[in-house]
Amino acid sequence: MSGEAEQLYAVLRYVRPLHLVAARAVTHALAGEHVTMGVRAVLEVLSGQGPQPVPAIGRALSMPRQVVQRLCDQALELGLVDTAPNPAHRRSRLITLTDAGRGAFERLHAVELRNLGEIAADLTPDDVAATLRVLDALTTGLARFAPAGAGTMTEEFA
Amino acid sequence: MSGEAEQLYAVLRYVRPLHLVAARAVTHALAGEHVTMGVRAVLEVLSGQGPQPVPAIGRALSMPRQVVQRLCDQALELGLVDTAPNPAHRRSRLITLTDAGRGAFERLHAVELRNLGEIAADLTPDDVAATLRVLDALTTGLARFAPAGAGTMTEEFA
Repeated sequence: MSGEAEQLYAVLRYVRPLHLVAARAVTHALAGEHVTMGVRAVLEVLSGQGPQPVPAIGRALSMPRQVVQRLCDQALELGLVDTAPNPAHRRSRLITLTDAGRGAFERLHAVELRNLGEIAADLTPDDVAATLRVLDALTTGLARFAPAGAGTMTEEFA
Repeated sequence: MSGEAEQLYAVLRYVRPLHLVAARAVTHALAGEHVTMGVRAVLEVLSGQGPQPVPAIGRALSMPRQVVQRLCDQALELGLVDTAPNPAHRRSRLITLTDAGRGAFERLHAVELRNLGEIAADLTPDDVAATLRVLDALTTGLARFAPAGAGTMTEEFA
């Protein structure tokens, strides 16, 4: 039992370095686009989930509403998103991707997938599937020991 | 190839949520100790690697020297670390763990391992070993696409 806990702890110790290096890789891919890491994250949510109001984007990104609002304002100025009436709430408009926003995200994501494809060539699909199982169990399991609100990290997107 | 890249991307998408929830779990475990997340990280390096000068701790944590210096000053005030002469460099002293510092880290780490032991009970050792292989390949591989210095995230420790 103790050895297994130590092994899982070794998994956890990869998370911060991987988070840092993944962010650096994204930042590097962004260099040619007028997009920050935070704006990219908003574009990704809209690309995957369709038009969303600001609070829903915040929930998808585990980010405070005010931070998401600022990112949406930036994306709006850049012409990457637009707003539309929200049929569900008269006072909270939907954020929608523009063609420019969809294009920017797709260009960025194509670079990311090309890079990941090179890395994947050295790995087996079974190992990657096992990793998804373990990370899912860790994320769900640690949430039991992490009451909501105890510490947030939004600075990397600010 | 494309499907494998997408699967690896799914792995990467776990990293930020897991980073957040792991930090929240650590913060919760810290509640009973006079220790912040950043000080805990310094104690962990000293516990694993023995006495180190500030710049070496910074390299181990991918954190700027000034941030580590501040954390070491905090730990010094709390009596968790002390300083000793550095045989290798006359002007850069070694940071050493005190008994109180070692005790604080060991209490925190025992809580973490107990929590992880519960989670590990639902996983196979093979899956966890595969996860370590994949995260190692991802961290090493992404570093090729992430020039050093392009973006850093130290705020969560500040």
